Amino acid sequence: MAKLKWGMIGGGEGSQIGPAHRLGALADGMFEFAAGALDHRPDAGRKYAQRLGIAADRAYGDWQEMLAGEKDREDRIDLVTIATPNSTHFEITKAFLEAGFNVLCEKPMTMTVEEGEEIVRVAEASGTICAVNYCYSAYPMVRQARAMVRAGDIGKVRLVVTNFSHGHHGDATDADNPRVRWRYDPAMAGVSGQFADCGIHALHMACFISDDEVKSLSADMASTISSRELEDDAMVNFRTEGGAVGRLWTSSVAIGRQHGFDIQVFGETGGLRWASEQPNQLIYTPVGGRTQIIEKGEGGLHDEAQRLSRVAIAHPEGFPLAVANIYCDLADAILGKVRDGLPTPSDGVRSIAAVHAAVASSKADGAWTDARPPMFR
Amino acid sequence: MAKLKWGMIGGGEGSQIGPAHRLGALADGMFEFAAGALDHRPDAGRKYAQRLGIAADRAYGDWQEMLAGEKDREDRIDLVTIATPNSTHFEITKAFLEAGFNVLCEKPMTMTVEEGEEIVRVAEASGTICAVNYCYSAYPMVRQARAMVRAGDIGKVRLVVTNFSHGHHGDATDADNPRVRWRYDPAMAGVSGQFADCGIHALHMACFISDDEVKSLSADMASTISSRELEDDAMVNFRTEGGAVGRLWTSSVAIGRQHGFDIQVFGETGGLRWASEQPNQLIYTPVGGRTQIIEKGEGGLHDEAQRLSRVAIAHPEGFPLAVANIYCDLADAILGKVRDGLPTPSDGVRSIAAVHAAVASSKADGAWTDARPPMFR
Amino acid sequence: MAKLKWGMIGGGEGSQIGPAHRLGALADGMFEFAAGALDHRPDAGRKYAQRLGIAADRAYGDWQEMLAGEKDREDRIDLVTIATPNSTHFEITKAFLEAGFNVLCEKPMTMTVEEGEEIVRVAEASGTICAVNYCYSAYPMVRQARAMVRAGDIGKVRLVVTNFSHGHHGDATDADNPRVRWRYDPAMAGVSGQFADCGIHALHMACFISDDEVKSLSADMASTISSRELEDDAMVNFRTEGGAVGRLWTSSVAIGRQHGFDIQVFGETGGLRWASEQPNQLIYTPVGGRTQIIEKGEGGLHDEAQRLSRVAIAHPEGFPLAVANIYCDLADAILGKVRDGLPTPSDGVRSIAAVHAAVASSKADGAWTDARPPMFR
Amino acid sequence: MAKLKWGMIGGGEGSQIGPAHRLGALADGMFEFAAGALDHRPDAGRKYAQRLGIAADRAYGDWQEMLAGEKDREDRIDLVTIATPNSTHFEITKAFLEAGFNVLCEKPMTMTVEEGEEIVRVAEASGTICAVNYCYSAYPMVRQARAMVRAGDIGKVRLVVTNFSHGHHGDATDADNPRVRWRYDPAMAGVSGQFADCGIHALHMACFISDDEVKSLSADMASTISSRELEDDAMVNFRTEGGAVGRLWTSSVAIGRQHGFDIQVFGETGGLRWASEQPNQLIYTPVGGRTQIIEKGEGGLHDEAQRLSRVAIAHPEGFPLAVANIYCDLADAILGKVRDGLPTPSDGVRSIAAVHAAVASSKADGAWTDARPPMFR
Repeated sequence: MAKLKWGMIGGGEGSQIGPAHRLGALADGMFEFAAGALDHRPDAGRKYAQRLGIAADRAYGDWQEMLAGEKDREDRIDLVTIATPNSTHFEITKAFLEAGFNVLCEKPMTMTVEEGEEIVRVAEASGTICAVNYCYSAYPMVRQARAMVRAGDIGKVRLVVTNFSHGHHGDATDADNPRVRWRYDPAMAGVSGQFADCGIHALHMACFISDDEVKSLSADMASTISSRELEDDAMVNFRTEGGAVGRLWTSSVAIGRQHGFDIQVFGETGGLRWASEQPNQLIYTPVGGRTQIIEKGEGGLHDEAQRLSRVAIAHPEGFPLAVANIYCDLADAILGKVRDGLPTPSDGVRSIAAVHAAVASSKADGAWTDARPPMFR
Repeated sequence: MAKLKWGMIGGGEGSQIGPAHRLGALADGMFEFAAGALDHRPDAGRKYAQRLGIAADRAYGDWQEMLAGEKDREDRIDLVTIATPNSTHFEITKAFLEAGFNVLCEKPMTMTVEEGEEIVRVAEASGTICAVNYCYSAYPMVRQARAMVRAGDIGKVRLVVTNFSHGHHGDATDADNPRVRWRYDPAMAGVSGQFADCGIHALHMACFISDDEVKSLSADMASTISSRELEDDAMVNFRTEGGAVGRLWTSSVAIGRQHGFDIQVFGETGGLRWASEQPNQLIYTPVGGRTQIIEKGEGGLHDEAQRLSRVAIAHPEGFPLAVANIYCDLADAILGKVRDGLPTPSDGVRSIAAVHAAVASSKADGAWTDARPPMFR
Repeated sequence: MAKLKWGMIGGGEGSQIGPAHRLGALADGMFEFAAGALDHRPDAGRKYAQRLGIAADRAYGDWQEMLAGEKDREDRIDLVTIATPNSTHFEITKAFLEAGFNVLCEKPMTMTVEEGEEIVRVAEASGTICAVNYCYSAYPMVRQARAMVRAGDIGKVRLVVTNFSHGHHGDATDADNPRVRWRYDPAMAGVSGQFADCGIHALHMACFISDDEVKSLSADMASTISSRELEDDAMVNFRTEGGAVGRLWTSSVAIGRQHGFDIQVFGETGGLRWASEQPNQLIYTPVGGRTQIIEKGEGGLHDEAQRLSRVAIAHPEGFPLAVANIYCDLADAILGKVRDGLPTPSDGVRSIAAVHAAVASSKADGAWTDARPPMFR
Repeated sequence: MAKLKWGMIGGGEGSQIGPAHRLGALADGMFEFAAGALDHRPDAGRKYAQRLGIAADRAYGDWQEMLAGEKDREDRIDLVTIATPNSTHFEITKAFLEAGFNVLCEKPMTMTVEEGEEIVRVAEASGTICAVNYCYSAYPMVRQARAMVRAGDIGKVRLVVTNFSHGHHGDATDADNPRVRWRYDPAMAGVSGQFADCGIHALHMACFISDDEVKSLSADMASTISSRELEDDAMVNFRTEGGAVGRLWTSSVAIGRQHGFDIQVFGETGGLRWASEQPNQLIYTPVGGRTQIIEKGEGGLHDEAQRLSRVAIAHPEGFPLAVANIYCDLADAILGKVRDGLPTPSDGVRSIAAVHAAVASSKADGAWTDARPPMFR
């Protein structure tokens, strides 16, 4: 079986995101790294690509060159990953979709709701596969949780509570560090800081597991380090289309929380709990019964979880392989299998709409606000 | 050393609260159980009191009889505990304070803010000791947390996040069980269900550890079981007088959470975490440093924690002895030692004011609302 | 109901064990503290007893005086606790049993096997209640574990693994501290250090939960701090009368382990796990099934556990109330109820025999050695 | 940079070990999968290799064919992994070493001590790299633990306690399942069951972290499921060359333990704890101080740990990437960097010698037995 051909834009030398995507794409042997425009400095990008084993003629200087070079090749790439700065996602994603490429776009998919809706339309028109990298949703036990909700194991969902709160930006003396500062600067980060950075992962997961969508929200955003223009802490209450109550807390000043991403889903007949720092267990309590620990790799898991377990029970798998799971699903989808777990452009634009709604609500004394993009109202 | 004399109103046979108070008062040998009006049925109360070893002439039929019987005795009780139904706390507490008795009142101290302010005034005028049973604040490691905040170990507090969310009312098929139903019925529970029942413990603790008071709040209350008139789930965002941000989630439908009471306090230079189900550990992370586990009974604790540790390090102490700690502090206070950790009538009325403010905010589209009783504005 | 009358020998001012017993005896209101010979200095003991509320004529100078003073009283004590130095347990226990008193003796019951067998015979002849304070066995979830084994929930027990390993004697620079040193000095501690101090609690619990007795053992004892004559670390492999395999590790140099007492019991159809630092949970895994968390206070527990749960589910109860459970059982037994969970003189002498067997085995190149007292071979 | 060329023997379709090695070798992009003899059925092996992208002329039918085919190629493989049944490791490893190939051999390296010593000699004579796949030692926090011991952070090691005990063979009704049964059959597994399968990982890690070697041991082996000829549970006490005391428990009938591999190392001035199910944390307690949680990816780790952390702090990495770390070290070593963490043939033969010593000790009434291969006495 020939490997699928994969390319990446961004993820240059020294970035954190580049190695994560390369490991994700390569770990399971389904893709080969065939093309790249890895750096905003054309020469640096070309050289780095070649050092990573990409042929010279596919080591591109920028994304336009890569699009031009790839689009007419017989052996053109089967998938391109967009791992560039946030503000460029829209333009590049749109261009590659229009040229018929399958795309994996980093989050946030776009900066505005309008751009997000445009990607939804373009992706649909193009007939290609377009996914957004909400990679936490690809942990096996997150897939198990979703499958259990769909199977009715906890009944109708009443309440979803999720946190994505860490403390790595909690040192005010480090607030001017450029790697931290840009996240709280509207000129670079847009309308939201911590909620747009981490909160939307939690919001996506709340919807993903409960198989539902956010309808409205009331938010309270705060800059606990006063030099920050954008929020470093936010609480978002929401209601879903299905009528569930949601609570989402996100923070970057929660000193002592390391990753700090967890979710609890409570239904009529049971509750589920999952935490990103112990991703191989899912905690399940049937109403009136005892709490049970569901282990990745145990017998009897739903197929959505079982097929993503590479090693035996209690051999932990971590974050890099959750990213790899996204690539597994993409490979399967490219080869024609239905993989409904992949995060879609609709997920992407819903996130952006929620970010804008949260900012508006927080400014409007916590008023409840429609969180949906216009196209989904 | 003669023991102090203790009496109780309420806490009759079959109640949960009666044994908890008796154990709390008797465990450390500082009080003897000298008088009681234990049941709303006078005869049953008198008989039960005598079975518990109370002399016949101090086994009273109701609280009025007890007040009359005790107030002129030379050996009158040094402390009376009010453990009657919530709606009667005000009247009984007021009467005993006015007669010069020291009082421990169960929470909520009163049903209305006006009553609460009246208790504050009466207690102050009487010169007696009046405490409200926010017993979780008497866990040694909660006292340690407060002492650390006061000592500046985490710097100025930026953010307090607390949850008191369990799942024991999550079974809709059990919602008509009288032991559950009354909590969600305004005729019996007042304006609030879960927030008034559990949430105010969390709110008190947020203020207790951070040594601060709630100023304003924005709330979202929901009845996830639709037959309930009062909320079974609430999220309360708040701001303190000291400028900290607060997040408080309370629920009774969080199936799988057993006790579900925890608190995290984040300051400029560190974070603290405590959970009621592992009450003997306090988790501390200095900014930029490693998370440390502080153990009850270890060397070098603040005196406020050390003096409440009865057995050696890692020998767990639990909830009943947290109640006992309240009684230890009361005995000390009665004997003239300063014990600033005891919850006061001011704490009691602040809780009631916050409950009413939360209900108002939730009805007003989440609008930010003053959470203070008028007397503290 | 008049309270039972309780006395104590030892447990004087400043001891750790005195307050633990007083709390245990008083917490549930079944005993009053009526007599005591609390200190090896007669005057100090008499004064302290009176300060604790004991009448002057029952505040004794030594145990002989107390025996003489109590034995002919109409209102003589219903129970005496022996909390004196280890080497005196035998003599005092024997004397009080022979005078017809009910006795709770601290562990170790005696120093030699011969003395232990003598206590068994005297207790049997006297017809009184004699218990040894293996108090960990009185935690509700330990009683639940035993009841589950008896009910067949894990099938025939194959394997018991228990640890009682802490690190509080791990600082060689503190080894000459008199509070530490005596434990490793044969002149004061007898033939064994850490195993006699902590290991026998673990050994008792292994037998208690698995409802079985130790038959033979092979031991490896070591003094990891070389100045110690007696062991500070020991591993004891054993076999039970029922054919189960046992593994017991005990250490006092395991720096970082605080209490460090846990047990795992594995049978043909399931496994159980309990740890003294989270005593309110029992972890249960049926073969081929998921791990479940059994909570103190949950519905459906065996009566042996349910009756020892004072407060609602997930309200933790700790070590002092485990001691109180021993006193509850003693009160019940004195009042004529059958309480088979109380540790007996047979348990006491079995422990001593195992200690001597372990020392012998360790000296004999690990040879398997009969661990039973002669009377039970 | 051209990728290194990698081949594998064994690890055919349907095996667990094949995918683990492929992921390990490919994840970080340092190797390409260039050759293989993947199945004992030549045709099946050739076809599967080609489906995995290996060129037809390097998809071999058996290891002899692969050795012949590779040894004279200019572009011959840089590394071969031996993942065949245990009894064949010796012959294949020896042949490839003698032909000058670098080898990664699955554990156990050989069946007998004599064979093990032969591999040590052949590897030394050949001047090639030969590693044994004790992959747990390549977890970043295990490397951190070793570096801390070497740096003196816990002082001289006194005591090492390690468990590798799971319950996956605890179902007697499944004991005849061929995938389980062979492990307890001397004809297939050799002299030892569970200790040779899992125990030697724990023994290697005890030595790896404490930077020491086992000198002598006393063992107790048991077949708790009586139909088994070889042990399913073993306790091994040991002493190291450096004078430390060791305790190693391994079991396959510990129902409820999933992976069940953990280690505690106690020195003169501190203790360390690590568990394979939470591999990203290392727990450290300095003597007299508080327990600290060291996180993979935190600042200030030893370089041996830092360089193996691919993603940011608290993003978990799991077992497959521990295997990948072995391949990273091998790639580095092939490229000329010194990587002292790689498990060596000396480690391999020491394991085998310990297995044989444990079996002998257990049969000899627990007698202490030299655990070293003759060449290291």
